[in-house]
Amino acid sequence: MRILIKNINEIYSGKRDEIFKNAYIEITDSHISEINTMAECPKEDIYDRVIDGRGKIALPGFINTHTHAGMTLMRGYADDLPLENWLHEKIWPFEAELKKEDIYWGSALSIVEMIKTGTTLFADMYFEMDRVAELVSKSGIRAALAEGLIEENDGEEGLKRSCEFAETWQGAANGRITTLIAPHAPYSCSTEYLNKVKKCADEKNLTIHIHVSETKTELENSIREKGMSPVKYLNEIGLFDSSVLAAHCVNLEEGDIEILAKKNVSVAHNPSSNTKLASGIAPVTNLINAGVNVAIGTDGVSSNNNLDIIEEARLASYLQKVSTSDPTAVDIWDLLKMLTVNGAKALNLKKLGLLNEGSAADVILVDVKKDTVSYPHHNNLSNLFYASHGNLVDTVIVDGEILMEKRIIKTLDVERIYHEVEKRSSWVADKV
Amino acid sequence: MRILIKNINEIYSGKRDEIFKNAYIEITDSHISEINTMAECPKEDIYDRVIDGRGKIALPGFINTHTHAGMTLMRGYADDLPLENWLHEKIWPFEAELKKEDIYWGSALSIVEMIKTGTTLFADMYFEMDRVAELVSKSGIRAALAEGLIEENDGEEGLKRSCEFAETWQGAANGRITTLIAPHAPYSCSTEYLNKVKKCADEKNLTIHIHVSETKTELENSIREKGMSPVKYLNEIGLFDSSVLAAHCVNLEEGDIEILAKKNVSVAHNPSSNTKLASGIAPVTNLINAGVNVAIGTDGVSSNNNLDIIEEARLASYLQKVSTSDPTAVDIWDLLKMLTVNGAKALNLKKLGLLNEGSAADVILVDVKKDTVSYPHHNNLSNLFYASHGNLVDTVIVDGEILMEKRIIKTLDVERIYHEVEKRSSWVADKV
Repeated sequence: MRILIKNINEIYSGKRDEIFKNAYIEITDSHISEINTMAECPKEDIYDRVIDGRGKIALPGFINTHTHAGMTLMRGYADDLPLENWLHEKIWPFEAELKKEDIYWGSALSIVEMIKTGTTLFADMYFEMDRVAELVSKSGIRAALAEGLIEENDGEEGLKRSCEFAETWQGAANGRITTLIAPHAPYSCSTEYLNKVKKCADEKNLTIHIHVSETKTELENSIREKGMSPVKYLNEIGLFDSSVLAAHCVNLEEGDIEILAKKNVSVAHNPSSNTKLASGIAPVTNLINAGVNVAIGTDGVSSNNNLDIIEEARLASYLQKVSTSDPTAVDIWDLLKMLTVNGAKALNLKKLGLLNEGSAADVILVDVKKDTVSYPHHNNLSNLFYASHGNLVDTVIVDGEILMEKRIIKTLDVERIYHEVEKRSSWVADKV
Repeated sequence: MRILIKNINEIYSGKRDEIFKNAYIEITDSHISEINTMAECPKEDIYDRVIDGRGKIALPGFINTHTHAGMTLMRGYADDLPLENWLHEKIWPFEAELKKEDIYWGSALSIVEMIKTGTTLFADMYFEMDRVAELVSKSGIRAALAEGLIEENDGEEGLKRSCEFAETWQGAANGRITTLIAPHAPYSCSTEYLNKVKKCADEKNLTIHIHVSETKTELENSIREKGMSPVKYLNEIGLFDSSVLAAHCVNLEEGDIEILAKKNVSVAHNPSSNTKLASGIAPVTNLINAGVNVAIGTDGVSSNNNLDIIEEARLASYLQKVSTSDPTAVDIWDLLKMLTVNGAKALNLKKLGLLNEGSAADVILVDVKKDTVSYPHHNNLSNLFYASHGNLVDTVIVDGEILMEKRIIKTLDVERIYHEVEKRSSWVADKV
């Protein structure tokens, strides 16, 4: 299959200041085979599909490095609550009633929302991952999947299941699915359990996806109970000798950032969730300055409440500007890198995150002619990150397959998904 | 003219917890004449227009209490810069080249954007207000307009022109236009000048719209030069004895909040601008707890970069949650009030801000069936403020006139506006 995307106003490769104007992208099967200016464009008749990129900009597909896709069933279910009530009275009782098929349909809604807002790869940590993997396979999106492991709930049995899942699905769907292993957090898994998780990760060459230092309470409890911060504790027990993707890292202590940098731990920054739950503002600027690889995640919609990674990027920038009193902090090119290159690095995926010859054909086209926020056109990347939302994403291609065109999802039945989500979310809410 | 909006899923009056389900709104000329459940709905044949509100929620039109509409010409023109460079090297040189007609077209783009995102009333502070007033008149939107006054640039002449503008346009366009007087800031206008402004305001019964304590530098300079904070200074010279709408109020000092409360000064909170320019996070929770009337503004797009008041509301809430470490701070009902009732109060406008029998017919319908972020429907108001954007606003009615229906603007030529903005913004940028 050969696809030509012609007449693209601007192609952003993902590298700072690199823009190809009035250019085309040629896709051969699952890879980008050429990017060049329109003057060099081959004749159209050699292609299976030709897409007109006029009035659009092309970017590498965005990477959401931390979410819990099944949680869309809880959108708007629990807001404006103290953290403990939110978790104990709303989220956990709701989750306790969730059946496998509920999570399937909730994840389906998330995948639709992510495709519609330009995400081509997401890192998921939740339950019933077999069904989610089937959905990823069907939808055409790319995903890095892991069963979330809470020791008390999942125990040895869960760990075994999680390792088997990782082995079974690694590289499935033409390599679109990669697997990780996801112990929930240092406070919900013992040292012994984490050691077993690490053993599985090392044997199967898996990245460990884990929540770290999200809240102030977590930091304080860790210092009280373990005599050190969560970061220092995880380092001490050797977890960071494996490949680790640490979600949040909001409440850090002196010395933590240096450890994350030295141990090549990647951070998934979730600004909406961290502000909405009042956890704090992660020291992203300091992390970046120390050389830590920081990518962006949306977290689940019960604490966001959407999966629009463009909005997430904007908030990431504005929060750093205000918290460091520096309006130059995290500029539009930093945001592009965090959403693409850094995301790929966090998930150890080669050939992703850049639009280059030879890279994977994960491409999004953003319409810069249809909405007021794209006018005037002083700077399309600024308009995208600082003024727009995911609703301007027009076309999404993953692994050379067109998943959305003119905002129509090609691979999933969106109306059916709405219907199932509606039905199941009210069933569950009624039972709680 | 009688309009019936039938089958509305939910009507939010603007009061906490007040929702009418499966109801209708009857509009007679410029006012709401009835709100009731569908069981009581009159026959359709008595109406000039019937709108189907199925799958939609109705709310009072949103009020943007602080913007500079003409600045859309600068969207994406100057980002990620230190404040001084931003202002001196980009914004002011650009503004120096702006002609009257440039501001007209820039303001037109803003008005389109505001209507499309549910704003029915905006408070504008900029130049060439005669032309903006004509535009407001033509577009059907409601506005509280004022010529911005910087003493050094505008002097006595400007003050005179500004007072005349206020007198000429007060109550124009069937009362849709109200006028204010807008000295730029306490650091750009002398005490003597502010006294003259106050005299004009008192004579003509105008609210004074002024920037107050936006940056830390402003606060520090005021303390150094005047021996007190901007708020204390303005109080001392008696400005707060008039009706005042103070934009920003980010960097306050002990005692300032009590003065704002005691003197009934309203605050226009601009969270995007304050974070993007790294000015700080306004102490909104403390202001509200002290009894200050806090409304929301977008500021101009050169520091935002859009005019979507729904996004602004979300950020206002999340910033308070994170800055006070309290996830219950500024909940969805507070946001609704800030965008409606508080906005009307800040601008001294009766009959606005609520959907009640007898109130002005400023109504928006939001589609809760067309986008993923509206699913599931646990809580439509949460989905609106915490998950959605202005692009879900379907219908906008102001003063009983339909300005937008099914997202089509009825009163302005949007394509022409795009064309003019594009042309003029690049002309000006080339000259700078």
